[in-house]
Amino acid sequence: MPYFISGVTADHQNLIARTPAQFKSMNDIDVKTRHRVMAIDPAGHTVTVRDLQTGHEYLEGYTRLLISTGAEAFVPPIEGTELEGVFTLRRLTDSLRIKRYLADARPRRAVIVGAGPIGMEMCESFATLGLEVTVMDLAGQVMPYMSPDMAERVQARIEEEGVSCLLEQSVTAIAGDGGAVRGVVTSNGEIKADLVLLAIGVRPVSGIAADAGLELGARGAIRVDEQMRTTGEDIFAAGDCATTTHTITGRQVWLPLGSTSRKQGRACADNMFGGETRFAGVQGTSVVKCFDLTVGRTGLGEAEATEAGFSPAVISIEAESLHQYYPGRGTMNLKLIADGGSGRLLGAEVVGQISSVAEKRLDVLAVAIDAGMTADHLQYLDLAYAPPYSTSVDIPVIAGNIMTGKIRGMECGCGPRGLD
Amino acid sequence: MPYFISGVTADHQNLIARTPAQFKSMNDIDVKTRHRVMAIDPAGHTVTVRDLQTGHEYLEGYTRLLISTGAEAFVPPIEGTELEGVFTLRRLTDSLRIKRYLADARPRRAVIVGAGPIGMEMCESFATLGLEVTVMDLAGQVMPYMSPDMAERVQARIEEEGVSCLLEQSVTAIAGDGGAVRGVVTSNGEIKADLVLLAIGVRPVSGIAADAGLELGARGAIRVDEQMRTTGEDIFAAGDCATTTHTITGRQVWLPLGSTSRKQGRACADNMFGGETRFAGVQGTSVVKCFDLTVGRTGLGEAEATEAGFSPAVISIEAESLHQYYPGRGTMNLKLIADGGSGRLLGAEVVGQISSVAEKRLDVLAVAIDAGMTADHLQYLDLAYAPPYSTSVDIPVIAGNIMTGKIRGMECGCGPRGLD
Repeated sequence: MPYFISGVTADHQNLIARTPAQFKSMNDIDVKTRHRVMAIDPAGHTVTVRDLQTGHEYLEGYTRLLISTGAEAFVPPIEGTELEGVFTLRRLTDSLRIKRYLADARPRRAVIVGAGPIGMEMCESFATLGLEVTVMDLAGQVMPYMSPDMAERVQARIEEEGVSCLLEQSVTAIAGDGGAVRGVVTSNGEIKADLVLLAIGVRPVSGIAADAGLELGARGAIRVDEQMRTTGEDIFAAGDCATTTHTITGRQVWLPLGSTSRKQGRACADNMFGGETRFAGVQGTSVVKCFDLTVGRTGLGEAEATEAGFSPAVISIEAESLHQYYPGRGTMNLKLIADGGSGRLLGAEVVGQISSVAEKRLDVLAVAIDAGMTADHLQYLDLAYAPPYSTSVDIPVIAGNIMTGKIRGMECGCGPRGLD
Repeated sequence: MPYFISGVTADHQNLIARTPAQFKSMNDIDVKTRHRVMAIDPAGHTVTVRDLQTGHEYLEGYTRLLISTGAEAFVPPIEGTELEGVFTLRRLTDSLRIKRYLADARPRRAVIVGAGPIGMEMCESFATLGLEVTVMDLAGQVMPYMSPDMAERVQARIEEEGVSCLLEQSVTAIAGDGGAVRGVVTSNGEIKADLVLLAIGVRPVSGIAADAGLELGARGAIRVDEQMRTTGEDIFAAGDCATTTHTITGRQVWLPLGSTSRKQGRACADNMFGGETRFAGVQGTSVVKCFDLTVGRTGLGEAEATEAGFSPAVISIEAESLHQYYPGRGTMNLKLIADGGSGRLLGAEVVGQISSVAEKRLDVLAVAIDAGMTADHLQYLDLAYAPPYSTSVDIPVIAGNIMTGKIRGMECGCGPRGLD
C-alpha cells in the first residue's frame, strides 16, 4: 500500500490477491462479503452470522472452523483521532482514503506517528510525493526492533532525505480546526500537520474467539498449537490473529507478517482436512525498504539473546557487496549475534544500500540460523560467486571468520578489507 | 577478466588483489617474483629455486611448505594452437594479450571453443564489443554442468543475442594463414575465425608435487586432507592445485573456484601455524552471468544424485521474483532435486533474468542443502519479505511446497501461480 500511495504501484486492483468471484470460479469456494460473524458456539459447532445488507441473522453450521480475522491498526485512546486527515494504514480502503485526501486536500505537512516499518515505508512514500515529513516515536530511535547503532544509520539516511525525526515523543492528542487535523500535540508542544498517519502498530482481532471461550496467548492473539488448532474443538486459527512459536527461544510469540500468514494458512488447511502438518514457527525475519536502504533482521537481537539465556557475542562489519572492479556495488552493514559459548548463530541485522543486495545476505543468515549452524560453519558456506554477484568471500562468510575469531579470543581477525 | 576485456572493468590494476609491495608493507611477507621452484625435497625440507633473471639456482629451507600452484588452461594437443589470434584466458597477461589483439588486429569473428562458464562470459564480452561470436562444444548442450532443459534456456538467450552455438563439435585443428588464425577445423568443416578462445577447461598444476612423491588425487590434483595436508610431511596444498571433498557425496573431487581457494587458504594458514581447522569441502555451487541471465547451480544434478545412490525427485518451476504490482521483477526457472525417500535436499539449478535475483534463491538453497534440510523444512523457512524484495511466499518456499507434494505423491500442489 505504501507503493500504491506513492504511485509506484499504479492500480490498487493489483493489490487484491484474489476476488470472491475468482475464489468461486477457480476453487468453487463461496465467499460471503458484508456478512459478520457475531458469535461462535463451539459446543453446537455453529456460528451466528449477520447479513449486513439485510440485517438478517442466522446460524451456520461447521464441521471445522477457521478463524482468520487478522489484525487491525491500533488507534491510541487520545482526542482527535477522528479528525479529517488522520489515518491508519491497514486495509486497502485506508490507502484509497489517503490517496483521495492527498488529491483533494493537498496536504503539505505529514506527521507519521510510529517509526516502525510502516512508518519508514511511509516516510519514503510521502517524501516521494513532495510532502514535508516528520516521523515521531515514543522510543529513542527509529525502527525500535533494530539495535540502536543500526537504527542510527537509518535515521541519518532519512534525515538526509529531509525527513524530521522526533524521538522520545509521547503524543497526547491530535489537534484540529473545524473538524480537520491541524497538528499533533506532544508533551513538548504542537507539531503542525495537514495529514497524520498513526502507524503505532497492530492488534490481533481476537475478541470473537475470546467471547467463545477460546484461550488467548501472546499479545492477546488466539492461542494455537503447531497444527494451528485453538483450544476449541474443531476450531483452527491462522494468520495475524494467531500466536506462533519463536523457533530460537521456543517461546509463544505474536509476530504478524504476511509471509508467516501464508505458511500458517497452508499448514492449517492441510490439518483441517486431516493432515498432520506442523508449522514450527518463526524466527522474526523481516525487511523493509526505506529510500535507498534495505533494513532487515532475523533471529534474536543482542538484548533478546541475553534475555533468553544466551551469552551473546556480537560483531559488526561494513562490507562492499562486490569487488571494486565491478560496477554497481553497494555498502552494507551487518551485525551478527552468536552464542559466545557454543558459537551457535542467533541473529543478524542488516542496513545496506539497495545495490548491496543486503536481503540476500540476510536470507542466507536466516537459513543458517534456522539450521542451528555455528559461526565456524558459516566460514565454509559454499555460496555462489561470480564478480557480478559477490566478492569471492561473501559477506556472511567474512562474518563467520570474524565471529569465530572473536569467540576463540583471537586478538586479530581477517576483516572485510583484509588482515587487520 | 571477461569484464576487463569488455571494458566493464576499466583498469586491470584493480584485478590485482595484492601486489608484492603490499604484501611486504602490510604483512612483512617477502614475495619473490620471477623465481621458479624446480623441485621439492620433502626429506630435506628444502626447495630448489631458480632465479629466472640471473639463472642462479639455490636451495631454500622450510619448516612448513605450502604448494599453491593453481591451475592452468588446458590447450588441446591439436595443430595451430600457437597461431596468432589463438588464446586461452587464465592469467591476467592472457587478458592483456587479448585486449591488445582486439585493438591491433581488429578481429571480426570470434570462435569460442568450450561452452562452460568462461565460454559463456566471453560470449557476452565479445558480443558487447561488436564481434560476431560462435561458441562450440563437444557436448550436445551449452553449460554441460547444467541439466539439458536449463542449458537450453541459456542457449536460446545467447542465440537471441546473435551468438551461434555449434554443439557436438570436435575441434581437430586450428587453421592459419601466414602465422595468424584463419579458422577452427571440425569434423564438419572449417569455421572462419579471426580470434579463437580456447575455453576448454583447466588442469591442476601438480607436476612438481608428483615429482616430489606426493600423492595426487581427483583429476590429477594434489591430494589433501581436511586440514589441507598433502601426503608429504609438513607440506600443505590449497587452491586450484588441490583436491577437496564433496560434502554431499563424501567423495574426493577437484572443483577449482576462487571462492573455494580463499576458504582453503584460510584453513590451511591456520593449520600451518598449529591450528586445527577443518575445511569440510564444497558442494559445487557456482554462478555465471551471461548477458541478462543468471545461471547457477549447487549440490548434485539429477544424474549425479542417481549415480551417488540417491533416488532423486525433481521439480521445475518458473516463478516471478516479485508480486506483479511492484516494478522491476524478473522471471526465474528453478530446478530442485531432493532424495525421494528422505526428502533431503540434494541440489538446485537456476536460470533467471538478472532482475529476478536468482542468485539469492540459489544461495538460500545452498545453505539449506549444506544444513541437510528436507523439502518439508524448506516450506517453513522464515525469509525476509517486503514487496521490493520477494513475493510473500518466496521461490524456495514454493519449491519446498511442490517438492513435498511430489514426494508425498499428491496429485495436485500449489504452484507459483496459485492452486493447480
